[in-house]
Amino acid sequence: MTDHPEPLTYAGVGINLTERQHTVTRFRDVAKVAARPEVLSGIGPFAGMFALASKYTDPVIVSTTDTVGTKGKIAALVDGYEGLGHDIVNHCINDAFTTGAEPLFFMDTIVSSDLTPDAKVALVKGVAEACAAQGIALLGGETADMPGTYYPGAFDLIGFIVGVVERAKLIDGMSIKAGDLLFGLPSNGLHTNGYTLARAALGIGVDGSDPVEARRRLETHNEDLGETLGEALLRPHHCYLRDLNPALPMIKGMAHITGGGFEENMPRILPEGLGCRIDKSAWTVLPIFPLIQRAGNIEEAEMYRVFNMGMGMVFAVAPSDADALRAAVPGALLVGEVTNKVGVVLL
Amino acid sequence: MTDHPEPLTYAGVGINLTERQHTVTRFRDVAKVAARPEVLSGIGPFAGMFALASKYTDPVIVSTTDTVGTKGKIAALVDGYEGLGHDIVNHCINDAFTTGAEPLFFMDTIVSSDLTPDAKVALVKGVAEACAAQGIALLGGETADMPGTYYPGAFDLIGFIVGVVERAKLIDGMSIKAGDLLFGLPSNGLHTNGYTLARAALGIGVDGSDPVEARRRLETHNEDLGETLGEALLRPHHCYLRDLNPALPMIKGMAHITGGGFEENMPRILPEGLGCRIDKSAWTVLPIFPLIQRAGNIEEAEMYRVFNMGMGMVFAVAPSDADALRAAVPGALLVGEVTNKVGVVLL
Repeated sequence: MTDHPEPLTYAGVGINLTERQHTVTRFRDVAKVAARPEVLSGIGPFAGMFALASKYTDPVIVSTTDTVGTKGKIAALVDGYEGLGHDIVNHCINDAFTTGAEPLFFMDTIVSSDLTPDAKVALVKGVAEACAAQGIALLGGETADMPGTYYPGAFDLIGFIVGVVERAKLIDGMSIKAGDLLFGLPSNGLHTNGYTLARAALGIGVDGSDPVEARRRLETHNEDLGETLGEALLRPHHCYLRDLNPALPMIKGMAHITGGGFEENMPRILPEGLGCRIDKSAWTVLPIFPLIQRAGNIEEAEMYRVFNMGMGMVFAVAPSDADALRAAVPGALLVGEVTNKVGVVLL
Repeated sequence: MTDHPEPLTYAGVGINLTERQHTVTRFRDVAKVAARPEVLSGIGPFAGMFALASKYTDPVIVSTTDTVGTKGKIAALVDGYEGLGHDIVNHCINDAFTTGAEPLFFMDTIVSSDLTPDAKVALVKGVAEACAAQGIALLGGETADMPGTYYPGAFDLIGFIVGVVERAKLIDGMSIKAGDLLFGLPSNGLHTNGYTLARAALGIGVDGSDPVEARRRLETHNEDLGETLGEALLRPHHCYLRDLNPALPMIKGMAHITGGGFEENMPRILPEGLGCRIDKSAWTVLPIFPLIQRAGNIEEAEMYRVFNMGMGMVFAVAPSDADALRAAVPGALLVGEVTNKVGVVLL
């Protein structure tokens, strides 16, 4: 009395445990580069273990999570999985680092219906290499195979990071005052945000678009960009850890310009009652942004709400620290000022 | 010169930042129950902050990540989102707890294309209530709206947990010896694993199945189960933290019986060269499992490879601690023994 005359098996419904075990072995192999002596376990047990150095007197654990979102839809067209690993690690490091924390370890989760083992291994390889580049451990991860959930080829890569900072050195924006200066460091592209709008504008990686034609467009040199469209769209999220580490004692607050742009991200670090003015002419808008804007006929204000527009990290310092800040962070640009008026004014 | 005579907007391509902000406010509201005094921030800044108590002399940070997987496909049919929040929290606690760690905080990520704000808030409400029930903090989370990635109504809920344990109290299985006893605590259902096979067997929440008919079947009382099929399938993952906390000093290793069953999970805690024998008659197989097995005509061995079959957590103790263990954990059942022969033998 069954609808299944042939016995159902897990492999038969799309989950091959033997193949999964083989892929996990490959994960462990590519993850080896991202080791730290504090890690007490390989990837494998039910949880990762990381020995916290006893040098901290009042440690605060800092943690955050994010995903690469639909950047993956463009990356998949040109087999750019490894770059996405760098994206998610650097995005998470930047978020955690806004508190002044030293990032310690990272974990990833890959969710998909039909992603190939090679693609999964490339994602983990990118994650591991990005962790290694910044000296953090890849402590573990999870791969969820979910048949019938994602459209063919669709997936997401989710990251989770843990860092630590002495309570006395915590950067939380609370000491920011009106008149403080806002410096910034440029982004190197869209980073990990706004890809749903970019894809719609460009007609790449959207429903009904031809993947062969999309790949051809991504791989063609573009004169406005000085590189291919794919290179401009897929350049991994820049990590600001090394740039800003020398300046941490001066920095009162740091805003990572991600989804929601200046309007959503600047208020996250400003004390109640304060706002800011951002001078858009202070940096060069990367050519990928006007290209997307023209293609989608997108209004200027919407561009600044969705994209970083070339400015990746904004940080507040006292005016008296301006010279020291410029010396410690050579690429820093003065991009605005903290004001007494709530709200973000883009001039 | 554009294919978009009407200006493209983020809202127009499926991402409404204003609605998202409103939903985030609702998240914060339902998350309030899962607070701890160590949390230095609400949900909102770029990262969550948790002050580690200075009582630890040699703290080890323990961390793990998992997803509810396709249990969500069944839950969605009967609006059972809140229960999934309990699932992911309890699953992660159980995994982290296998090391002996005290879970401190949790973060969640919701990924979907079209999940309603109400469904997202219900997921976070379940997460927060489950955290509150076990005394851990909900430190933050992320919601990724990814149009064109998930089939309509499909989503995943990903969890990350961080705990801490004194290095001297770490449980890592290394002291397990042949002859040690394996005790276990029953599961209360499928927990969070095997749903792709269960759905295929039952024809519920699979491609082409009728959601109205599926809902009717889920809500019908089933005599074999003594409850509705939906109740049996969706009961949230049991959390073993309180059950096993009193016995921690005796426990040499703990295996959370999740995806891969005994065969994959027992070896994760056994030192090299050792195996185990599990006596299947030691516990009652919950009636939901034979029901799935009959519906899918699934072989017995495959059932034990995919499902927990009624046994949720297995832990190793020295024979000399057996009586003390039984006293500390009243529901513990003797389910097997550690052996000198590599491999898992199910008798």
